[in-house]
Amino acid sequence: MELYIGNKNYSSWSMRPWLVMKHFDLPMDEHLVAFDDFAADGQFKKTMSVMSPTAKVPTLIDQEIVVWDSLAICEYLAESFAEKHLWPIDKTQRARARSISAEMHSSFTTLRQYCSMNIEADLRFIGTKLWKDLPTLRAEVARIEEIWAERPEINGFLCGEFSIADAFYAPVVMRLLSYGLPISAQSQQYMQNILANSAVNAWVVQAQAERQFVQNQEPYRQHGEQFIKG
Amino acid sequence: MELYIGNKNYSSWSMRPWLVMKHFDLPMDEHLVAFDDFAADGQFKKTMSVMSPTAKVPTLIDQEIVVWDSLAICEYLAESFAEKHLWPIDKTQRARARSISAEMHSSFTTLRQYCSMNIEADLRFIGTKLWKDLPTLRAEVARIEEIWAERPEINGFLCGEFSIADAFYAPVVMRLLSYGLPISAQSQQYMQNILANSAVNAWVVQAQAERQFVQNQEPYRQHGEQFIKG
Repeated sequence: MELYIGNKNYSSWSMRPWLVMKHFDLPMDEHLVAFDDFAADGQFKKTMSVMSPTAKVPTLIDQEIVVWDSLAICEYLAESFAEKHLWPIDKTQRARARSISAEMHSSFTTLRQYCSMNIEADLRFIGTKLWKDLPTLRAEVARIEEIWAERPEINGFLCGEFSIADAFYAPVVMRLLSYGLPISAQSQQYMQNILANSAVNAWVVQAQAERQFVQNQEPYRQHGEQFIKG
Repeated sequence: MELYIGNKNYSSWSMRPWLVMKHFDLPMDEHLVAFDDFAADGQFKKTMSVMSPTAKVPTLIDQEIVVWDSLAICEYLAESFAEKHLWPIDKTQRARARSISAEMHSSFTTLRQYCSMNIEADLRFIGTKLWKDLPTLRAEVARIEEIWAERPEINGFLCGEFSIADAFYAPVVMRLLSYGLPISAQSQQYMQNILANSAVNAWVVQAQAERQFVQNQEPYRQHGEQFIKG
């Protein structure tokens, strides 16, 4: 199966199905299409418009079948590899996993708009300001903390074993870290569980190694050298 | 199964799972929770906060299981009634149905923001203006027409037989009609297919009979009497 993704440092939507494929050891030929200015005649759109009707990442291609949305890709994989249980086995936890994944898919627009994923960057200086200025950001993070607090075990994942739901919330973990938003000890424990996952770790290491600086993904940094962690 | 929905005239997210349950003749106890000003101590939020962690509609309750997002509800139903084939039977069409449903779930934000569903209203006067002023609206409608044009048969539905995907695009049909946005003859044919569906017809008749006027759902009308169709 061919998975088309964007830059690992920036592309939160790509991260989700990639984590699922990596964690569950599914057959994956990975194609990274680097972000640019997204002009119609640029390399990104020229590459992706051949692959997908929306010319966006992520896109999964399985022989003649094209799946072009992160959640649709995960449902397609869950169905294609039913024996691997990409969704929780327990029916109640599975319904919950689908609800919180769909909630992430359509909501949390302030977090997504103002705290775009940027794994390598230390953006705590702007995070402090955003936290103070934006009540909707605080409300969205409170809702995320509520979702995380309902996980069955404090040392476990959102709905028991690692599932698609955790892949959907992993980019949020990255944002909370980069922007240094204040969260409870309980939530920090969940973030540690996510960071200790080997698929997440592989993504983060590769994201940090990219060292690309894409202007339209950087509302807060002038250039790559400034404010980089470590 | 208990399905909590909002006003049929306004609640596009409620319409989707309701159409699926009605069309496929699934057991449904319907609870309409009328929209108000959505204040925390108002009737709507007081009712829904007991039912759902997001205090929103639609919410499905199946004994002890709660599902609180339109797409998650549809996946839950598809799984619970596998023999009814709520998604297309053909694997390629099923992948396509999931992709376009997920695309609707997360995209088309201009259409959703500026042309909110209002089945009883004739809003063509504002539709003309929005169409002229908003290039993103024209681009989104063009994408919708592209999706509709790829249906297997002109007299059929998006992915063959009526499926969850059609339920996801039915509210768009309502918006295009109310706002009178200009579309191709091919797309108008699809709209006719949707309007001729008995579940859609039942929803529309009930929406028109509501005759409620909710201020926060009416950016373009002063009161219910003005600009009502017929």
